[in-house]
Amino acid sequence: MREEIGEIPAAVARLLADGAAETDAAAAAVRTRMPRWASIAGRGTSDHAATYGRYLLETRLGIATGLAAPSVSTVYGSVLDWRDGLVIGVSQSGRSPDVVEVVERARSGGSLTIAVTNEPTSPLARVAEHVLWCRAGPERSVAATKTYVTSLVALAGLVARASEPRTIPGVAESLRAGGLRAGLPALPDVLETTLDAVAAWATGAIADEFSDSDRALVVSRGFNLATALETALKLKETAGIFADGYSAADLEHGPVALAGPAIPLLAFRPDGPVGARMDGVLDRLERTGARPWVVGGPELVRRRDLRRARSLAVPVNLAEALTPIPFAIPGELLAEAVAVRRGHDPDAPRGLTKVTLTR
Amino acid sequence: MREEIGEIPAAVARLLADGAAETDAAAAAVRTRMPRWASIAGRGTSDHAATYGRYLLETRLGIATGLAAPSVSTVYGSVLDWRDGLVIGVSQSGRSPDVVEVVERARSGGSLTIAVTNEPTSPLARVAEHVLWCRAGPERSVAATKTYVTSLVALAGLVARASEPRTIPGVAESLRAGGLRAGLPALPDVLETTLDAVAAWATGAIADEFSDSDRALVVSRGFNLATALETALKLKETAGIFADGYSAADLEHGPVALAGPAIPLLAFRPDGPVGARMDGVLDRLERTGARPWVVGGPELVRRRDLRRARSLAVPVNLAEALTPIPFAIPGELLAEAVAVRRGHDPDAPRGLTKVTLTR
Repeated sequence: MREEIGEIPAAVARLLADGAAETDAAAAAVRTRMPRWASIAGRGTSDHAATYGRYLLETRLGIATGLAAPSVSTVYGSVLDWRDGLVIGVSQSGRSPDVVEVVERARSGGSLTIAVTNEPTSPLARVAEHVLWCRAGPERSVAATKTYVTSLVALAGLVARASEPRTIPGVAESLRAGGLRAGLPALPDVLETTLDAVAAWATGAIADEFSDSDRALVVSRGFNLATALETALKLKETAGIFADGYSAADLEHGPVALAGPAIPLLAFRPDGPVGARMDGVLDRLERTGARPWVVGGPELVRRRDLRRARSLAVPVNLAEALTPIPFAIPGELLAEAVAVRRGHDPDAPRGLTKVTLTR
Repeated sequence: MREEIGEIPAAVARLLADGAAETDAAAAAVRTRMPRWASIAGRGTSDHAATYGRYLLETRLGIATGLAAPSVSTVYGSVLDWRDGLVIGVSQSGRSPDVVEVVERARSGGSLTIAVTNEPTSPLARVAEHVLWCRAGPERSVAATKTYVTSLVALAGLVARASEPRTIPGVAESLRAGGLRAGLPALPDVLETTLDAVAAWATGAIADEFSDSDRALVVSRGFNLATALETALKLKETAGIFADGYSAADLEHGPVALAGPAIPLLAFRPDGPVGARMDGVLDRLERTGARPWVVGGPELVRRRDLRRARSLAVPVNLAEALTPIPFAIPGELLAEAVAVRRGHDPDAPRGLTKVTLTR
């Protein structure tokens, strides 16, 4: 797992260089077909890539997007009105039967379909009209790391290329790529810098604190809700910790009652408007006795508060919409380090297999 | 909280009797406007009502539905293409600013908008075109119980009335109310029967086991994913337990690693195809050493296995799509009983207020 995290910059470089043609083709189809709504299907880690994708599609393309509930098709056998939809299936193995079935039904029902997968000859790749092949190389660890990050990059590349300036009839404001296109080529370097900057931090005192607890909270908002959910899942599956990932907004509607001095807490605080809102939530969490660990952008360096000693500023300037890509790394390194400290094998967690065949 | 759970049958009877006209008006608008997609916005408990609503809209009306990410509007200020959408805001207080803003933007952008709220003069009710008033009466406990159940009933009533036989162009199969309309009038009696049948069970040995643990898992699938999520949230906010609610399918993609003999586990197993699939997951969970508690329908009585002593069959025949309404009750009673055993005040959990104003 640790080794595969180290391969992330090279995998992303390969995807950006070799995947451009298929990304262009899929993006052209999005622009031509102009879908009225979108749905993204994925399970587990891929569901978190889907969470990221929905923020991209909504903020950059203005397309109302939801996360699919595959059981509507696979268990209840219901027929959806798929016309004018964009349906994206995310599965690293390309073999999750429920995701394959959703994409197959969507395509025959009239949706534009795109697969995001690390296996270009998989069932998912075969049923979708367009395929974004992640090119992460073989992933041997059960915990998905480089395949998660490359699926985020594949989605960001798609939306960056699809978001030609576009005006929605009836509204004045245009939607733009907003820093996506400019930031993508820098990602391999950004990820190398991130690996160097976070490795010692993510495997040091924070890992000691998390490994001493059976419970933890991970919080962010917006684009990095995906990061909070994915970091929590990694802590669950590799280290056996009840780590709950939350949107800061949802946390305040109940689960904030779980916070306190005994519960390790990690927050992802991107620079900008989300960061400012996160600060209010962090203040509130500190009043429960919680002592947050914070991963953020360069803004964090300028802050002088009690959190600073427990904060890590990833020293890269990047559009907020791209920050979930480098921010995934500290969570993955933390989960691996905590798993080892707790005597788990992070490469082969108890009871899990690499390919999960849910219907 | 306990008293308000007891008021659920009367609240539902009031909603069914007095809310018919507004439900008919909203359902007629859905039939007339024929939305191409739907989005439901809610936070906390209301987000779980939204989860239930998406299964109703997709399986009964064939409308692709997602759960809204309010921050797309409230934090990022993005403009969505709202045309031909159906946007439902769920907020018991009607004062959640982010939900209000989503509905307001959706309406001015061309979506059909419906509010589900217990406050018919609230900001949410004022901005939406149609209002489904839950009529649950004043709820004093911070933990939402009767307002949750009535919001499920309001959504079921809407979809039952909107689901006139309808054929999607290009597909042969028609979509039908499928037992929704027949089951609704029976709900007050069903809920009385459920309260009688589950009260002793939900506050007995299962409550002892849950109160001895800081962690728990709650599992279901399909329509009752909402029940699993809501029961877990109630255990979090009232009893301070890290209770994770999962779809059985998502559980298998990682979090199953958390299961084991020391982790209390509650499953909601409706009769029918979901129940059959849940059995496979329960078998797998038992192999980890977990000993599931199971709430189900009459099918459970006919089963003769090791789980039986820890199972509760709610003795009512109901379309699966309506089972989340009675199944909410054992979870609410359990959370209240566990909170009391752990020395928490279930009516006023630490750090929570009745109205949460997230933006």
